[in-house]
Amino acid sequence: MNHYNPGRHIVSTFRAPASLLTDMEGCRAAFNEIISQQQLTKVGEVYHSFEQGGFTAVVCLTESHVSIHTWPEFGIATFDVFLSNFQQDNTAKAEAFFSAVIACFDGEEINTQKLNR
Amino acid sequence: MNHYNPGRHIVSTFRAPASLLTDMEGCRAAFNEIISQQQLTKVGEVYHSFEQGGFTAVVCLTESHVSIHTWPEFGIATFDVFLSNFQQDNTAKAEAFFSAVIACFDGEEINTQKLNR
Repeated sequence: MNHYNPGRHIVSTFRAPASLLTDMEGCRAAFNEIISQQQLTKVGEVYHSFEQGGFTAVVCLTESHVSIHTWPEFGIATFDVFLSNFQQDNTAKAEAFFSAVIACFDGEEINTQKLNR
Repeated sequence: MNHYNPGRHIVSTFRAPASLLTDMEGCRAAFNEIISQQQLTKVGEVYHSFEQGGFTAVVCLTESHVSIHTWPEFGIATFDVFLSNFQQDNTAKAEAFFSAVIACFDGEEINTQKLNR
């Protein structure tokens, strides 16, 4: 059996403007651009908007997944990027993905945890 | 603005038999049963199987999401359940979901982290 090399999972809650926390299509465009830039491979996705204006997005990657849940009523989003290191070390890509999302959302981090798992 | 009540996010890597780590339809049935039992609300899902036998599943819930990525070649799975406490305290449901998944997969925990976020 090969050795399992834990992946980087970044879990963050950040504040963002309501105009961005309700812009699901803007998020979709941003995620697609980051996925392309980082040369990640999408295998499926769910985008779902809620009546109160927030949305949930999960993108499955061959390298694991990215998710965001927005709560414009609280002015926050909870974001995850988890990239496995199975085929190559994707730690830098996870960090770059997170930084790009914070930039896109004009985000102010409330709490960020970086796990190796 | 209302106060944001952090949700419980359980992140676990566990060992499991290859027969279960390659059984995507069994996982789908188990997830659906647990979602029903815990009275959670599904808003979308992705199930994707890989050539080497593993699979990825992400289920979006109004309460956030559940994900699993299996690596039968390593004998392990990485599992997440994240349930927000926006409408009610879902901590007990997150714990129950995790316990049910470990039981379904005959899982042996390698590493489990429980975050409030």
